[in-house]
Amino acid sequence: MANFSNMVRCVFLLTTLFVPIILGSFIEKPGPRYPPTKGEVWPKPQNQVKIGIRMAFEMEQFQFKIVGNNSPLIDEAIERYSFILSLQSGRKHQRKPSNRRMKNERRTRLADDDLVMKVLNINMTGQDEAWPSLQMDESYWLNIDDVTGNLISASPWGILRGLETFSQAIYRGSPLSKDLFINQTLIYDFPRFPHRGLLLDTSRHYTSVTKIIKMLDGMAYNKLNVFHWHIVDDQSFPYVSAKFPTMSQLGSFTPDLIYTPADVQRIIQYARRRGIRVMPEYDTPGHTRSWGVAYPSLLTQCYTDDKPNGDYGPMNPANQDLYPFMKDLLTEIVDVFPDKYVHLGGDEVEFDCWKSNPEINAYMAAMNITTFTGLEEVYIQKIVDMVRDLGAYSLVWQEVFLNGVKLPPGTVVHAWTGNQQILMYNITSKGFPALLSTCWYLDHLSNGGDWQKFYNCDPHNFPGNEEQKKLVMGGEACMWGEVIDDNNVLQRIFPRVSATAEKLWSAAEVNDMEEARFRLEEHYCRMNKRGIPAQPPSGPGFCV
Amino acid sequence: MANFSNMVRCVFLLTTLFVPIILGSFIEKPGPRYPPTKGEVWPKPQNQVKIGIRMAFEMEQFQFKIVGNNSPLIDEAIERYSFILSLQSGRKHQRKPSNRRMKNERRTRLADDDLVMKVLNINMTGQDEAWPSLQMDESYWLNIDDVTGNLISASPWGILRGLETFSQAIYRGSPLSKDLFINQTLIYDFPRFPHRGLLLDTSRHYTSVTKIIKMLDGMAYNKLNVFHWHIVDDQSFPYVSAKFPTMSQLGSFTPDLIYTPADVQRIIQYARRRGIRVMPEYDTPGHTRSWGVAYPSLLTQCYTDDKPNGDYGPMNPANQDLYPFMKDLLTEIVDVFPDKYVHLGGDEVEFDCWKSNPEINAYMAAMNITTFTGLEEVYIQKIVDMVRDLGAYSLVWQEVFLNGVKLPPGTVVHAWTGNQQILMYNITSKGFPALLSTCWYLDHLSNGGDWQKFYNCDPHNFPGNEEQKKLVMGGEACMWGEVIDDNNVLQRIFPRVSATAEKLWSAAEVNDMEEARFRLEEHYCRMNKRGIPAQPPSGPGFCV
Repeated sequence: MANFSNMVRCVFLLTTLFVPIILGSFIEKPGPRYPPTKGEVWPKPQNQVKIGIRMAFEMEQFQFKIVGNNSPLIDEAIERYSFILSLQSGRKHQRKPSNRRMKNERRTRLADDDLVMKVLNINMTGQDEAWPSLQMDESYWLNIDDVTGNLISASPWGILRGLETFSQAIYRGSPLSKDLFINQTLIYDFPRFPHRGLLLDTSRHYTSVTKIIKMLDGMAYNKLNVFHWHIVDDQSFPYVSAKFPTMSQLGSFTPDLIYTPADVQRIIQYARRRGIRVMPEYDTPGHTRSWGVAYPSLLTQCYTDDKPNGDYGPMNPANQDLYPFMKDLLTEIVDVFPDKYVHLGGDEVEFDCWKSNPEINAYMAAMNITTFTGLEEVYIQKIVDMVRDLGAYSLVWQEVFLNGVKLPPGTVVHAWTGNQQILMYNITSKGFPALLSTCWYLDHLSNGGDWQKFYNCDPHNFPGNEEQKKLVMGGEACMWGEVIDDNNVLQRIFPRVSATAEKLWSAAEVNDMEEARFRLEEHYCRMNKRGIPAQPPSGPGFCV
Repeated sequence: MANFSNMVRCVFLLTTLFVPIILGSFIEKPGPRYPPTKGEVWPKPQNQVKIGIRMAFEMEQFQFKIVGNNSPLIDEAIERYSFILSLQSGRKHQRKPSNRRMKNERRTRLADDDLVMKVLNINMTGQDEAWPSLQMDESYWLNIDDVTGNLISASPWGILRGLETFSQAIYRGSPLSKDLFINQTLIYDFPRFPHRGLLLDTSRHYTSVTKIIKMLDGMAYNKLNVFHWHIVDDQSFPYVSAKFPTMSQLGSFTPDLIYTPADVQRIIQYARRRGIRVMPEYDTPGHTRSWGVAYPSLLTQCYTDDKPNGDYGPMNPANQDLYPFMKDLLTEIVDVFPDKYVHLGGDEVEFDCWKSNPEINAYMAAMNITTFTGLEEVYIQKIVDMVRDLGAYSLVWQEVFLNGVKLPPGTVVHAWTGNQQILMYNITSKGFPALLSTCWYLDHLSNGGDWQKFYNCDPHNFPGNEEQKKLVMGGEACMWGEVIDDNNVLQRIFPRVSATAEKLWSAAEVNDMEEARFRLEEHYCRMNKRGIPAQPPSGPGFCV
């Protein structure tokens, strides 16, 4: 006790001496740490010239005007952005002022600004398209150098991206005023990578359709274009299959925590109208425990002491009924999801259970398969071939590539763990398209503004030649479902995913974190204003 | 390049070999990782006997009955818990079935259960009280050993805690059924520590009154009893002072991000009705930058090269106008907040600015003060004495104690950083009451279920004698405001704060994390059901 007291006394003294020193410099300025920018665009456009002239903007005096080819996508987008701009101004979009008071009010408010934005001409020069795809053209010109502006793109997708940019360029003059402005600017913009995704896992927790819809809104505000729907996994099977309805009846958490065919179509259509592809993932042969609730024979029985122990492992590749089942299911999936790409998973396959099972061992001996990676290869090869035969392309997690499965050309390899540089080098050096997620795991938390970690990651950051770099299709932020549910899924995604979005859209040279902070603060407030509960990115502040 | 290729090949091989090994055992069982318990109480009662008989529970057949002394607090609580139980059963609380169908339905559903809970007698044996306090008696007996149960307490606060326990003991029979049950049980319960707090910082971001109200609901569901309102700080001054209204007019983020006197009273009353004290913090002499927007002369001007550099540091203790100002403000605060305790802060005082200022140096020379901790002592001593003269008690952050300020007996020292054991030992060995927050910083994030970290912390975990242990009043979880706003504040607090709540209420022996997981899963779902957007604590699962 005496010794302890001495130690205490000593540390007491040390603490007394050092606490004020260690804790110095904690005085902060009043107000936000990073005041938001005004009318800056996120992700940052590839090319932007700022003219230095400010124009007033009022929905009552403004109209979108279609001057090129038309598209239902554009009509709907005009409706949406009219609403968004009305939200921003706190007034409804109406071409004619409804009464004298309003007219007077307007005259007073605009006294300082000679120029008032009148029209945005929307000029789609190419043909309409119905479905977004990996090949879609998202480039656009946005010229706001007069009270009549011009938005030009060859495709409806470029028009959608340009409208988003236009809506972001409009800003409030001050926190206390509802007056809106837009700065004259010339923009030529296009994405750096064609695949800019967000993975959502709806198996570990169920995410409601309402929240998925909100998430798609948020994706559009960040120019993300692929919703990678990790729809089923070990824990639950919420996908309602028309061919195998018992899978969700028995394999979902509860019979109402499901995605009906109508839900799935609603999500696909909602995404389509925002230029977002919906790419489903049916992860096999691991991560399939919930599949076995309805169909136990799909899975491998695990053995202890030469007896089944009641546990199930990965799919049972020795069961020849498995392949017709998978073909039926994949045929349905390729039919339900219009996108040309299906993610087949293939990650984290557990070999212990295969090892324990006599049927598997007998099958391997008969087929002359000597390793479990070899067994996995045999299975995945068949599945990948099925997808190819159905006219679709596959994506697989990195393990499939690392295990040496003979992938058809064009199969995308998705990097998620390990050394990013080496892996991206390896994938592309073998000529496969690559997708990066390693540095963008949204479930990995750290204190405060951990978007910074995401912002410091570049998919081209690996040694390799030009051909290899071209094989990088982009990347995805991953929102795994272990510790998210409807209460926090959107807060956890936004605005952290915005960092990923900018790295995937903007030029490689856009990597100044300090410049980005202020824009991200505006973008966070912008998303809030539009109903996305994005959380504060970088410290003290407020949104108006 | 050749070398790199070799390295790549080597690591490729290593990766191929090790990835499946490292990543093995990823097969999960279907369903939730930790299935929720049924009708278990959080925080765990001090004494509970389970009788092993299940009774049915239906709001239509049930009533609360006051058999002892009455209190408006109890009347209101009965209303609240009737509503909560109706929510749970999905039916409204009504004594008589409204039609025949319902009667039949009930008969069918209850066929398996002979016993149906009829009445909870509420017996307050002591006098009514209006305000919760550090000394309030929160102990209660809850005996559910027949269709008529008894809740007994000497005080309204014990009745409130007992009603919360009763409401938690009622559970759904299965996810797919709305039938409710309660297990017969005998409970004698009381808190381990009298001060079980939650700090919310409303200066770094403004939290709306609506969210604070929700937070108070959530606190009541966790038997937390002190809302430590860190209401102002460097960044903003949202508190509307009747005496000094310009402080919020100029010092808040915007003129509407404020707490009016009516807001403050609403929050105090709402908390009071739930047995929650509202203890405000007006942190000085540091953390006061926003005070200086309206009254710059309160603060120290920082100097560079013998000239004011435009920055301001801590309060200016050389300015003798400061003390009448503080006395006026503290008089108002003690009047506005009925609780006997005021938190005076005193943490993280920056000495560099004081050091640079000639007025401060002259004052120190004149007063024969040789150190800046000495200067801080002079200031804090005056403030602490003011509070004592106003008939209230002070709490201060640990620095004030470490700097050797002569604190009046009963001043509470609040530990927040450094070595918890040594600090708690030191504070209590000097005879001061201590409050622990070091291990309960809600803004410190880590992956997934980081409530575990909070659960592993015990305020008595320091060497010291019985007298010292008795000086530990409890602790507080701290929700600092840098990266929370209305979008995520409740999600971030709940259910992580539940871990703190259990450590502060339940017996020291309640520390089995594995047992707690299952109860916490039920508690998280329970809070969700009641409108608190608590996030998933421990992995895959669902709430019904």
